[in-house]
Amino acid sequence: MDKSILLIGAGLSTTHLIEYLASQGKMYGWSITIADCNELLAKSKSVFSNTSSLKLDINEIEQLTDSIKNHDLVISMLPPSLHLNVAKICLEYKKNLLTASYLTDEMKALDREIKNAGLIFLNEIGLDPGIDHLTAMNIIDRLKSEGNYIREFESFTGGLVAPEYENNPWQYKFTWNPKNVVLAGQGGAVKFLQEGQYKYIPYHKIFRRTEIIEIDNYGKFEGYANRDSLKYIETYGLHDIKTMFRGTLRRPGFCKAWDAFVSLGATDDSYIIENSENMTYREFINTFLAYHPTDSVEIKLKYYLHIDQDEQELWEKLEWLDIFKPIKIGLKSASPAQILQSILERKWAIGKDEKDMIVMWHKFVYYKNEQRNELHSSVVVKGENRQHTSMSKTVGLPLGIAAKLILQNKIASKGALIPVLPEFYIPILAELKNYGIECNEKIIT
Amino acid sequence: MDKSILLIGAGLSTTHLIEYLASQGKMYGWSITIADCNELLAKSKSVFSNTSSLKLDINEIEQLTDSIKNHDLVISMLPPSLHLNVAKICLEYKKNLLTASYLTDEMKALDREIKNAGLIFLNEIGLDPGIDHLTAMNIIDRLKSEGNYIREFESFTGGLVAPEYENNPWQYKFTWNPKNVVLAGQGGAVKFLQEGQYKYIPYHKIFRRTEIIEIDNYGKFEGYANRDSLKYIETYGLHDIKTMFRGTLRRPGFCKAWDAFVSLGATDDSYIIENSENMTYREFINTFLAYHPTDSVEIKLKYYLHIDQDEQELWEKLEWLDIFKPIKIGLKSASPAQILQSILERKWAIGKDEKDMIVMWHKFVYYKNEQRNELHSSVVVKGENRQHTSMSKTVGLPLGIAAKLILQNKIASKGALIPVLPEFYIPILAELKNYGIECNEKIIT
Repeated sequence: MDKSILLIGAGLSTTHLIEYLASQGKMYGWSITIADCNELLAKSKSVFSNTSSLKLDINEIEQLTDSIKNHDLVISMLPPSLHLNVAKICLEYKKNLLTASYLTDEMKALDREIKNAGLIFLNEIGLDPGIDHLTAMNIIDRLKSEGNYIREFESFTGGLVAPEYENNPWQYKFTWNPKNVVLAGQGGAVKFLQEGQYKYIPYHKIFRRTEIIEIDNYGKFEGYANRDSLKYIETYGLHDIKTMFRGTLRRPGFCKAWDAFVSLGATDDSYIIENSENMTYREFINTFLAYHPTDSVEIKLKYYLHIDQDEQELWEKLEWLDIFKPIKIGLKSASPAQILQSILERKWAIGKDEKDMIVMWHKFVYYKNEQRNELHSSVVVKGENRQHTSMSKTVGLPLGIAAKLILQNKIASKGALIPVLPEFYIPILAELKNYGIECNEKIIT
Repeated sequence: MDKSILLIGAGLSTTHLIEYLASQGKMYGWSITIADCNELLAKSKSVFSNTSSLKLDINEIEQLTDSIKNHDLVISMLPPSLHLNVAKICLEYKKNLLTASYLTDEMKALDREIKNAGLIFLNEIGLDPGIDHLTAMNIIDRLKSEGNYIREFESFTGGLVAPEYENNPWQYKFTWNPKNVVLAGQGGAVKFLQEGQYKYIPYHKIFRRTEIIEIDNYGKFEGYANRDSLKYIETYGLHDIKTMFRGTLRRPGFCKAWDAFVSLGATDDSYIIENSENMTYREFINTFLAYHPTDSVEIKLKYYLHIDQDEQELWEKLEWLDIFKPIKIGLKSASPAQILQSILERKWAIGKDEKDMIVMWHKFVYYKNEQRNELHSSVVVKGENRQHTSMSKTVGLPLGIAAKLILQNKIASKGALIPVLPEFYIPILAELKNYGIECNEKIIT
């Protein structure tokens, strides 16, 4: 039976998704419409016999509605705030929907209607959120079924550059949306649970409260806390857990240096710097420092942020970004975050022939008969090239596989869902293995 | 000719305002209606022959409209967000309006309509904003008319306790809305101009970027920056100025100790602390610190915030608040800011027989023929008792005097205004002098 899929949004992370849908579609008789407001982009991605492209402005409700009406399933790769409009039309015309974004309260509010319509709106089915849920729930259900008590859970994910291209002092390059990297950690205090105690960290301290983890063959990483770890206690059914912590991975030393920008206020996106266009990098940094007629920007920064003379590695990171040089910013009416992003893009750009890398690491501490055990599970995926990135692969394949399961009526749950049940993680993890995405487990007793 | 005034909101800072309106009203034939949602409060304030009280719920638009319709002038002492509703009704029924709050963009948007109706909506006519504008513009216009170039302007205001009651390590007590004190500085980066350079400070650094000022007979104070000093460059007509800085006064040492709470994240009002009801003060502080099985809250705090062993004065301030004691918070579903406020209210409560004090200080640097001059202008007002506070006096009298000027048709300007013109500051400052509110000027050449 022929089916049609509407993919809305054709950005960088859709490469693997489109290839997967096209190749599976040839077996199962699917046609895929790739819709984007950028017509050229949509066209450039539609290189298969069963794909077609569509110029779609999602603000034109009539066109959007027509498009959704004429397909069997919708995958929205739009920015998170735009999913809800798509969802409402999907509900009206009874189409299943998938997104890689967080399940919002607004989407949750539609749950009963979605169920009544016999539909599945599956969210959080990318990498993080996505593969983190699949891999964590697979282990949690298994540990529980074996009669273990899960006492601690920590989970970290990082979108990084492959080790062979870590050739700058930060050991970091932009491998996905730079704006999200600059604004990371903003928008509310960090909340987590440690040894039964609730812990809270304000934004300006997040990058100073890191921990070091080590992954076999990949060396040491440093993790900083994600916004709200507490909500996953319920999602994962871990009601008696004592430690629940989710974070993001960087190479050691990154966070302390990044904290310099946070402390200065250079990651603020809420106001415009006066005269930003004619300002230099050096003047931009000086704008956050106290006035002095003769003291250098360097010494004022060191003094303000308590950077000791011997903190060479940190200082090298900052200097290497050229922030003390009189280079013109050239951005009109820009916020601090926008200026910082432009400074970083000059230096953190990933090369045409360079590869990215996804690292995910879970740690479980569990008990059986008072015997303490630790389980470490890691997933490492390297990109193939700048089109076939590990980010595109790990976001796109879970989406594609889940779309297949839904089209083949293999998912029994209905409503506004996230993939925490076995009917999701068993088949999706099994198929991801074929694509080299698999957990490496290690148990320490 | 008899006139009637509707005062909406009868809180603590209305004591002097009501007394002024009642006594002046006896001379000029005014009747004053004191309206509040708290009927008893309104009644308790209506003790004059020409005042009456009214229970008024401002959400009941019909009653609000009727009340406004039946008066000649309206003074809104409501929280700032509620003025706009009142303003729209005043516009419809052609009534003049006064508030002590900042002129908002929404109010400004009504300017043309207000002008067309021949009305005056006067904002920022309390203490800060209010007396700061009156006193600053009086000096600015005078210096300019004498042919001076004004190069620098700094202005500070503090609502403090009178020196004889500064008997705690913070030399501070709550003399006005405690919530505003806890949240001070939040809601956007600080912006100011120094020596021709734009400077920006993020919230978490505001209380570390203070300066010391000294006022004759009152000793030293410490000032931290207010949110947006830049907007007053235009308001005050100081287009060529090189330094423009507005701030808030505390006693020296206050800010560095207060910064401990800011650094911890204890002033955050955006989320709820889990299980706050059963938590102790000590546990509240610990919730912002890293977990450790045996280290004390004290040593963890010192280590986290880089508080050296010999910083006795700072440490004494923190200890004196009992934050390390196992005292129950007893607040259900409270935010960090709410919990901190309750801790502070226990210790910073001002006594029944104690007095508050208002301190305002302007510094102008101006030039004539390359001769540098400095003008310091200070206003210090002490309260008489807990009803007749200096805050009530300095907020209420400018409002009352401005209301009189408007009722007597002595103000020619129309529209959404703030009091920066001579027609405001000349008569208001002259009359404030009769009540002991006057500038003490000092020129240093």
